[in-house]
Amino acid sequence: MANNSGEQPLLVGLLDPPSQLSQKNATKKRRFRRCKSAPTAEIALRLKDGGGLLPRSESIFGKFHPSFVQVVLFLTLYLGVGTICFALVNKPIKGKKTNEILDAVYFCVVTMTTVGYGDLVPDSTPTKLLACAFVFMGMALVGLILSNAADYLVEKQEVLLVKALHMYQIGTIDILKEVETKRVKYKFLVILILLLLLIMVGTIFLNKVENLDLVDAFYCVCSTITTLGYGDKSFSTEMGRIFAVFWILTSTICLAQFFLYFAELNTEHRQHLLVKWVLTRRMTSVDLEAADLDDDGVVGAAEFIIYKLKEMGKISQEDVALLMEEFENLDVDQSGTLSASDLLLSQSSQEEN
Amino acid sequence: MANNSGEQPLLVGLLDPPSQLSQKNATKKRRFRRCKSAPTAEIALRLKDGGGLLPRSESIFGKFHPSFVQVVLFLTLYLGVGTICFALVNKPIKGKKTNEILDAVYFCVVTMTTVGYGDLVPDSTPTKLLACAFVFMGMALVGLILSNAADYLVEKQEVLLVKALHMYQIGTIDILKEVETKRVKYKFLVILILLLLLIMVGTIFLNKVENLDLVDAFYCVCSTITTLGYGDKSFSTEMGRIFAVFWILTSTICLAQFFLYFAELNTEHRQHLLVKWVLTRRMTSVDLEAADLDDDGVVGAAEFIIYKLKEMGKISQEDVALLMEEFENLDVDQSGTLSASDLLLSQSSQEEN
Repeated sequence: MANNSGEQPLLVGLLDPPSQLSQKNATKKRRFRRCKSAPTAEIALRLKDGGGLLPRSESIFGKFHPSFVQVVLFLTLYLGVGTICFALVNKPIKGKKTNEILDAVYFCVVTMTTVGYGDLVPDSTPTKLLACAFVFMGMALVGLILSNAADYLVEKQEVLLVKALHMYQIGTIDILKEVETKRVKYKFLVILILLLLLIMVGTIFLNKVENLDLVDAFYCVCSTITTLGYGDKSFSTEMGRIFAVFWILTSTICLAQFFLYFAELNTEHRQHLLVKWVLTRRMTSVDLEAADLDDDGVVGAAEFIIYKLKEMGKISQEDVALLMEEFENLDVDQSGTLSASDLLLSQSSQEEN
Repeated sequence: MANNSGEQPLLVGLLDPPSQLSQKNATKKRRFRRCKSAPTAEIALRLKDGGGLLPRSESIFGKFHPSFVQVVLFLTLYLGVGTICFALVNKPIKGKKTNEILDAVYFCVVTMTTVGYGDLVPDSTPTKLLACAFVFMGMALVGLILSNAADYLVEKQEVLLVKALHMYQIGTIDILKEVETKRVKYKFLVILILLLLLIMVGTIFLNKVENLDLVDAFYCVCSTITTLGYGDKSFSTEMGRIFAVFWILTSTICLAQFFLYFAELNTEHRQHLLVKWVLTRRMTSVDLEAADLDDDGVVGAAEFIIYKLKEMGKISQEDVALLMEEFENLDVDQSGTLSASDLLLSQSSQEEN
C-alpha cells in the first residue's frame, strides 16, 4: 500500500486528540509539544494492516489473537467432526427426524450454542458422553468467536453506520475521528440493529415456513437467541433446519455480543466519571510530595501525569516500579536522565560481554 | 477497625512490589524512592473496607458497582416477582407438576439461567410473552452477578487456598503478597475446585434422589451447568426441584465464571509477553527524542515510564494529552514544574474569582 511510506503524518494527525482543549488555552505559552508521535504498537499495527480502516484496538495483542479465518476453520472442523461422530455412533439421536446428515449438523449447532431444544436428544450412553464433551468445547469455541470475529465484523460496519447517521458525505478522516472517539457507542448501535434484523427475519421465517402463529414464532425466536430452548416450539422441517443452522449460530452470538458491548459501554461511562473526578480533585501539598518521583522537590509534567494515571487506576505501582528498574539499568552514567551518551555506553558494555 | 488509623505503613508495605528486582540491583545507588505511597483510589477503598483482605481491584469503580447485598436483593426480587406473575396468569405452565409455588420458582430459575429443560413450558400467550421478557432480564441479572458477586466470593477464598496449598502457616502478609502477584491463577483454581465439587454433588444427588443411573446423572449435570437443558432428563420430584433451584443457580454461574477466569488468565499471559517484549526492546535515539516530553534534550525517569507505558498499550496518547493540559493549568507560574507556590497561586486566584 502507498500508505506504508508516508505513515507518520497521516496517523499522528489522526490520533492527535482533543483539539477543543488545545484551542481553549491557545493564548497560553506552549512549553510542551503536545502530541509526540510515540510509535505505539497500535500505530505499528495500523500500518501493517495498510488498507484496514479500523483495526483492533488491542494493539500488539493482535499477534496472539486467532484470526477470523482461523475461527471459521475451527468452526467448520468442529461441526464436521461432530457430524461424523454422531453419524458413526450406534443409535445416535432420537426425536423428530428429517435428513440424517442435516439432523446431525442441526443437533451439533443446537448443542454448541447451548440452545438444546430437546427435539433431538442422544439415545445411547456413548452419544450422551459425546454430547457432554461437545457442549463444553462448543462453549469455548463460542467464546473464541465472541472474543474475536464478531468484534472484527462489527468494526467493519462502523464507518458505514456513521455515514448513514449523518446522511451526508463527510470526509473519511472526519468519519474516522468520529468513530474513534465514540467507538463503543457505535459498535453497540451496529449490533443492536443487526440483532433486531435477526429477530425479525427469524420470526417471519418461523411464521411462513414452520407455520407457527406470530406469537409462537416470536416466542420461539426469543427462546432460541437467549439459548433458553424450551423445545416445545422448534425447527422441524428440512428447510427450517437448514435455515436454523445458520440463523441460530449468528443470532445467539449476536445477542451475547450485544450484552458484551452493553457492559463495555457501562465500563466506559464509569471510567469517564472516574477521570472527571481525578481531574477536578484539588492537588494538595501531600499530593505534590507523593508525585515527586525523583525527589527533587518539584513535580515535572511527566511525574504529574504518572501520579494522576495511578489515581485513575490505569496503571499500578507495580508497572511504575518495573519500569523504574529498567530506567536505572539504562541510565549507565547514573545522571538521573537518559541521554544519547547513556545509550552509547550501554551498547558498548553489551558488546564487551 | 484499628487498621484505619495506622493505614499508610501497612498498605505501602503490602503494595511494595517485586522485592527480587530490588535486591538484584541493591548495590546500585538508589536515586529514586521506589514506592511512593500514591494515595490511589484503590488504597482508599481498601481502607474503607477495613477488614476486607482483598477488596476488588477496580479501585474506585466500587462506588458505581452494585454490592453483593444489592445483587442478592435483585435476585430475590426477580424470583419473587416472577413467581407471582406466573402464579397469577391463567393456564401458566404445563408439564410435569409437583407443588404449584415450587414449580413457579423452579420454572423461573430454569428460565433465567437459560437452561430451559422444557419439562415445564408456558401454556398461554401471556405466559409466553412473560417468559420472553423474563429470560432477557434474567440474562442481564446473571451478567450482573458474574461481574460482581461471584468475583467477590472467590476472592474471599483465595487466601484460604494459598494456605492449603502451602500446607504450613506462613505470615498473613506473605500470603497476601503471594495472592496479589498470582491473583488470577488462584482465582482460577478456586473456581475450578468449586466447579468440580458442584458437578460431583449434582451427579450424586440425581443418582440418589431422582434415581437416574450414573451416566444419565452426569449427562443431566453437564446438560444443566452448560445451560444446554435438552430436558429428556431433569428434576421431576419435589425434593429434586428444591435442590435444583439452588444448585442450578450456583453451578451455571460457576461455569460461566470459570470461562471468564480462563480468558483473564490468557489475557494476562499475553500482557506478560507484551511487557517482556517492550522491556527487552533496545532504546534508540529516535525513542529518546520521542520520549522527551518537556523538550529539554534528556529523558527523565518519569518521561521514560510514560513512554514505555504507551508502548505497552496501558495508556493512550489521549490520556497523556488530557493530563498535560491539566498540568499546564495548574502550573500557574509557568516554570515547567509544580511546586508549593503554584498551589498557593492557583488557590488565591480561585478565591479572587
